[in-house]
Amino acid sequence: MTHDGIITLGHGAGGQMTGDLIDNIIIPILHRNSNSQELEDSVKIDMPEGDLYFTTDSYVVDPFIFPGGNIGHLCVHGTVNDLAMSGAKPVAISLGFILEEGLLIDDLKTVLRSIHDAARDANVLIACGDTKVVPRGKGDKIFINTSGIGVTRKALSIKGSGARPHDKILLSGTIGDHGVAVMSAREGLSFNSSIKSDTAALNGIVEVLLDANITIHTMRDPTRGGLATTMMEIAESSGVEIRLDERAIPVSKEVNGACEILGLDPMHIANEGKMVAFIPPDDAERALSIMRSHPLGDSAAIIGEVHQGRAGCVTVTSFIGGARIINKLPGELLPRIC
Amino acid sequence: MTHDGIITLGHGAGGQMTGDLIDNIIIPILHRNSNSQELEDSVKIDMPEGDLYFTTDSYVVDPFIFPGGNIGHLCVHGTVNDLAMSGAKPVAISLGFILEEGLLIDDLKTVLRSIHDAARDANVLIACGDTKVVPRGKGDKIFINTSGIGVTRKALSIKGSGARPHDKILLSGTIGDHGVAVMSAREGLSFNSSIKSDTAALNGIVEVLLDANITIHTMRDPTRGGLATTMMEIAESSGVEIRLDERAIPVSKEVNGACEILGLDPMHIANEGKMVAFIPPDDAERALSIMRSHPLGDSAAIIGEVHQGRAGCVTVTSFIGGARIINKLPGELLPRIC
Repeated sequence: MTHDGIITLGHGAGGQMTGDLIDNIIIPILHRNSNSQELEDSVKIDMPEGDLYFTTDSYVVDPFIFPGGNIGHLCVHGTVNDLAMSGAKPVAISLGFILEEGLLIDDLKTVLRSIHDAARDANVLIACGDTKVVPRGKGDKIFINTSGIGVTRKALSIKGSGARPHDKILLSGTIGDHGVAVMSAREGLSFNSSIKSDTAALNGIVEVLLDANITIHTMRDPTRGGLATTMMEIAESSGVEIRLDERAIPVSKEVNGACEILGLDPMHIANEGKMVAFIPPDDAERALSIMRSHPLGDSAAIIGEVHQGRAGCVTVTSFIGGARIINKLPGELLPRIC
Repeated sequence: MTHDGIITLGHGAGGQMTGDLIDNIIIPILHRNSNSQELEDSVKIDMPEGDLYFTTDSYVVDPFIFPGGNIGHLCVHGTVNDLAMSGAKPVAISLGFILEEGLLIDDLKTVLRSIHDAARDANVLIACGDTKVVPRGKGDKIFINTSGIGVTRKALSIKGSGARPHDKILLSGTIGDHGVAVMSAREGLSFNSSIKSDTAALNGIVEVLLDANITIHTMRDPTRGGLATTMMEIAESSGVEIRLDERAIPVSKEVNGACEILGLDPMHIANEGKMVAFIPPDDAERALSIMRSHPLGDSAAIIGEVHQGRAGCVTVTSFIGGARIINKLPGELLPRIC
């Protein structure tokens, strides 16, 4: 059973031990008012009116506990943010666990508590779940898939291809914190104590922007691949040129220092609690002040604007004034960052 | 890039290589009319009227290609079936891939083709996806999470706690095929050529039952833990006794033979294309003949009935006439069967 304090293959076989794990560990921490006997194969969700949005993400971050959070925060925030970036209000999420034999049940509990807290804070229902166990050496402690559904206000259309010439590009805060925090924890680097993941749910800040009737053409959270990759994707799918001003992009002193030591560009490093918004010029200043008045946006900045120019091209004006063309993260720079 | 024919860590880093994998391998096979540039963080789903149902399952089956199918069929069928068992018409599914570095891209293509075919045949939209890559030895070739959403006709309530005394228990076909097929492939046993997985989408057979206005109190697909575990769960959550007649439970000669050699009970072995339905006596014979006229139900049978009796108890009348009490699969009998 679960008394030995580690996950065994029996916990994933779908029988009594799986039921015990769900009833005695998972459900009590997630505070569901049911036990596995009442858990159905699928569950009914009370949906508010609006257009339905659906998203999925698997989380394989290594290490799964890192400065500023753990995979539990990440899996809730990441999926909530994917919905929020479409302008959807997150309603419900699923949790699919793939546990490696030998995982400490105490570590699983830590993750479950973070999931509970993150879902409560983001005001999203944990609707359904699934638990599988793989033998030692066939997984890596814990992987989580979180899918999510949400609804938008009718007639709202915010998408990656929506950026238009003259749009101002707002960034909600510093970049690079999550990726550097995870990588420094993974590699055992000494500056890890001062750099924390920015993992956070962005649906609140999106909500206040929408409540204020800010027109938003595009929103994205620059996760894997970093701000550079996100900008490239938007420039390509909107068929526009994006010009960024490097001097306006907030990067903490600690992240800048770490990146210099490691030879990394903060523009390519993953964030988990930051957003970019493409906003027509008339609404941009108002949007910026709304962002800045939100706890997750106090260092928000306008970091660039959209031009007709060369479709699919992103240029950055650097600190010394020259302009360079940036590219997507090519490949294997930072695997398993989320 | 993808030219070397194997998955590398770069394919999971979220940059150019991830985009290439999605654009050049995944999307063309899944026949989506878009490329990754247009893929949003979450996607709008056109939902028919009705109550919304949500489900999730991760698939870690070993080996991921087995007699009668592969993990691609399984991930679509399993999630479609979880929705169908609540009486919901599956509308859309998500795909979350966790690939191990070194996976052959040809094997990934095989799985993707099966996903495409299974989704087309089950008439369900592949709505969104995610791809992560983990280093060699930190995963096992391919894991897939499939979440799904569906809608029920209004006022339909089919659940595990719905079984009532006098209900007849219908089983749509033979048990044990999937589990024995996977296990024999895994262990390299010689009888594997004649036993194939029963993996199939059950939404069609459910649809015809509902179209015929059959009253259904409970439906379940007896997957992990087998028919025995499913019966125990229903007996417990409905607070009823279930009496099964072993002589009525269809098991193929091949599965029976394999189980005798391996010392396994077919009642504990996973199925991936079978369903049980608890149906009031007045509708039972009609339901049986409807099931039997469906290609997936031609060996359907009434295998038992519900009694007031001892709540949470499942008894089986055996071939030689005696009755025994059955239990859930205790633990590690058959890990990674789905």
